[in-house]
Amino acid sequence: MSTKEKRTEISQLGEFGLIERLKSLIATVRPDTVAGIGDDAAVIDAGNHYLLWTADMLVEGIHFDLSFTPLQHLGHKAVTANVSDIAAMNGVPSHVVVSLGLSNRFSVEAVEALYEGMRAACEQYGVDLVGGDTCASRSGLILSLSAIGKAGKDDVVKRSGAKPKDIVCVTGDLGGAYIGLQVLLREKEVYMANPDMQPVLEKYAYAVGRQLRPVARTDIVHELREAGVRPTAMIDVSDGLASDLFHICARSKTGVRLFEDKIPIDAQVYNTAAMEFKLDPATCALNGGEDYELLFTINPADFEKIKNHPDIHFIGYITDNPEERILVTKQNNLVPLQAQGWNHFRPASESGR
Amino acid sequence: MSTKEKRTEISQLGEFGLIERLKSLIATVRPDTVAGIGDDAAVIDAGNHYLLWTADMLVEGIHFDLSFTPLQHLGHKAVTANVSDIAAMNGVPSHVVVSLGLSNRFSVEAVEALYEGMRAACEQYGVDLVGGDTCASRSGLILSLSAIGKAGKDDVVKRSGAKPKDIVCVTGDLGGAYIGLQVLLREKEVYMANPDMQPVLEKYAYAVGRQLRPVARTDIVHELREAGVRPTAMIDVSDGLASDLFHICARSKTGVRLFEDKIPIDAQVYNTAAMEFKLDPATCALNGGEDYELLFTINPADFEKIKNHPDIHFIGYITDNPEERILVTKQNNLVPLQAQGWNHFRPASESGR
Repeated sequence: MSTKEKRTEISQLGEFGLIERLKSLIATVRPDTVAGIGDDAAVIDAGNHYLLWTADMLVEGIHFDLSFTPLQHLGHKAVTANVSDIAAMNGVPSHVVVSLGLSNRFSVEAVEALYEGMRAACEQYGVDLVGGDTCASRSGLILSLSAIGKAGKDDVVKRSGAKPKDIVCVTGDLGGAYIGLQVLLREKEVYMANPDMQPVLEKYAYAVGRQLRPVARTDIVHELREAGVRPTAMIDVSDGLASDLFHICARSKTGVRLFEDKIPIDAQVYNTAAMEFKLDPATCALNGGEDYELLFTINPADFEKIKNHPDIHFIGYITDNPEERILVTKQNNLVPLQAQGWNHFRPASESGR
Repeated sequence: MSTKEKRTEISQLGEFGLIERLKSLIATVRPDTVAGIGDDAAVIDAGNHYLLWTADMLVEGIHFDLSFTPLQHLGHKAVTANVSDIAAMNGVPSHVVVSLGLSNRFSVEAVEALYEGMRAACEQYGVDLVGGDTCASRSGLILSLSAIGKAGKDDVVKRSGAKPKDIVCVTGDLGGAYIGLQVLLREKEVYMANPDMQPVLEKYAYAVGRQLRPVARTDIVHELREAGVRPTAMIDVSDGLASDLFHICARSKTGVRLFEDKIPIDAQVYNTAAMEFKLDPATCALNGGEDYELLFTINPADFEKIKNHPDIHFIGYITDNPEERILVTKQNNLVPLQAQGWNHFRPASESGR
């Protein structure tokens, strides 16, 4: 690095600030480029359909800790994260490629375990793994995956389509992956202090499973289509409900009101957060991330069509004031909604290692 | 890594052996998957055309040395390597995505320099950069790029189509990137010993340019089409002429005879190799790699159509015996052709750092 000029630290901008700045450098010029940087996936005109395309990199020590993450689960999760981005565009994933960086700590058998997890995920989501690259790394494991999928030209849903009065919906429940990580980190500490102690994880099976082996909600894309509902905006919950909702609001130039009592939290997760970690469960659900649920908005006219869906929760509504980002608490107080989300450019000790 | 079972070192298999082993674990099942792992790019049926898709990871300290690689050039080269894989399938590249892993050594300005190089390459090749991922890395820079392109269903050329008597062709000249790297490594050593010394690179401008800013031969794909020639097999020269030719022979189940005196080597590269580095120029051309030229075979009936092309060289022919891999030397001796190529899983000191 020989540059002696101005030096701006990436941490000053954060990941999203950096992406915005880079986006301004990159103009797309091709007529078949429908949407580039700035959504869950790029959108490319492929003739009679749109091609959706996403990429995601996972770095050891930043995104995962192999002391408690089995390689099979890691492979599965890497595919899930990419497939989830395709689902978040209301698309159907079809293929993935994987590039692996491997330090000499990793044996052939370890790579096979990783591939076994990816294979299982591909089978689960109906996608084919069709290629990639394998190379050496000086430190640890790097997984760089990319997924493609397709959507009808009228079906693609971006982050930018939310309108005032639209209903904010989320699938499944939230905060589980975050609490699962806290449990794993706590058990790791216990184990480090006394290697004879066996980790007790059965009691936290749901939360730990949410962290280690999340599931992309490709099912919801099909169910919404069958119900005749096309979301107005959509994103997957990877950074955290609040952060991801703000992406929708920013792109849609809208505000939002969320109701704390509507945010779905699993009972075990709720109790573990509150009792054992003295954490506010709603904060975990709002800021935990990595749940890979789908967060979307619908036109109120579509509410009747899915109001009885057992796994879709209606947690708030979109407002016309872009400055308005409000949480209505259980006590009916209005408080500013805040996004902590994940910022891997913060010191590592804060970012889930 | 808690596995206590059998441990096979990746270096025992090498990169290609590892890929073969992983390939056997991954079955593709979708009817739209035309070709998966095992060629320069995957081939996917997109309706009225084939979608081509490749991915490539570059890791600091393994693939590049930032002490003599400007970030702009690195960004350009990363795009080139991916675009070259699409060209090697006889396809036309259209879009790239990039995932970056960045340690805190890198400033926003450094990332912008990298993007400026990628932007310039995108403009050069007529492709759009449409997305990716940016995350932290614990050590150094990781670039993971992926490119897509398209080809008519009758146009795709794989590694597997070479037939006995086909003529082996290569574009441009070979060994330059390797000699350029040797020059840069030598100048780095001089500089490390005495930082007041300024590197003298003008004399080696061609070779150094081949190393730092290679060009993908997308032009050749168009020219062959215009000449009415569809190669029977094709690959890009990234690992080295011999290694890449063996990929064609292995997939095509054929042998090959190469003529040493036909292998194109730039005069400056030749002299630098022989005089300054005491290296056999032909060996550099056969095993250097990273030239990103196109290596392909044609039906002898097509020879007339391109025999006067100034940048296509006819260096040998395909034989029917898969065991036969022969170099006909300038002295008319027959010697076994050997592929050293690049193997990043060898100790770093041997692999171009």
